[in-house]
Amino acid sequence: MYQNILLAVDFSKASTCVAQRAMQLAPEGSQLTVLHVAEYLPMLDYSGDPMAMTPLAIDEDLLMEDAKQSLQRFVDKHLQGVEVVQQVKMGIPKLDILQTVEKQNIDLLVIGSHGRHGLARLLGSTAAAVINDCPCDILAVRINPDNS
Amino acid sequence: MYQNILLAVDFSKASTCVAQRAMQLAPEGSQLTVLHVAEYLPMLDYSGDPMAMTPLAIDEDLLMEDAKQSLQRFVDKHLQGVEVVQQVKMGIPKLDILQTVEKQNIDLLVIGSHGRHGLARLLGSTAAAVINDCPCDILAVRINPDNS
Repeated sequence: MYQNILLAVDFSKASTCVAQRAMQLAPEGSQLTVLHVAEYLPMLDYSGDPMAMTPLAIDEDLLMEDAKQSLQRFVDKHLQGVEVVQQVKMGIPKLDILQTVEKQNIDLLVIGSHGRHGLARLLGSTAAAVINDCPCDILAVRINPDNS
Repeated sequence: MYQNILLAVDFSKASTCVAQRAMQLAPEGSQLTVLHVAEYLPMLDYSGDPMAMTPLAIDEDLLMEDAKQSLQRFVDKHLQGVEVVQQVKMGIPKLDILQTVEKQNIDLLVIGSHGRHGLARLLGSTAAAVINDCPCDILAVRINPDNS
């Protein structure tokens, strides 16, 4: 069975169902990592480089701090009594999720079918790229699009 | 946990891994259905209607018989000791898999990530259609493309 499970959450209503499935599938002794990728696109100056301004750096720190607190609240509420590793990254959900899968030798990625960071959205216009690139099994938990 | 699991197989080498995962995930007392969709495109006449010729009907029967035998062999070899319901359909894999999920109230579809009827192939140019249309959870079992 799966030993190293990654649960990707975007804090939508649907993330609750996705978290429940991940808990049910994680056998005793397995590692469950909960990842949230905070989307952040730095402003670019006219040359296309990110602007190196203090307010932006502050924004980034605030966003990261906020994401960490949100993840802690999510874990406290929906993953009670389960030992999890919390991770917050800032970037592009699809890339960061796949990079985490690869770097941490994940054997099962649990993700919502819909929602901001759901599989349907991650697939987007790049079609089967996530399925093609993901080096592990993927469980896409069915989400009613109204809840996403 | 899942009570009504559909395992879609195309008899590629990779189907073995997919079957193993389905067995591991099927809790005691749950129903496991193994589905193979035999691809068959009837020849069309000049008006676009299927040709109503005897040889074609015979072809179809032979193909169906062959598919049933192949599924029986697959089950005997790779799903030994597990009670499964065998189903063979003739048509378009994507549509028939989704129809089966809907009609039989499947709560988990287990499918290879690659292979002739794998998720990447089913997604094809219709992008996220399978994810969007599938009314249940999907477990995409990672398949090395060389084995598909």
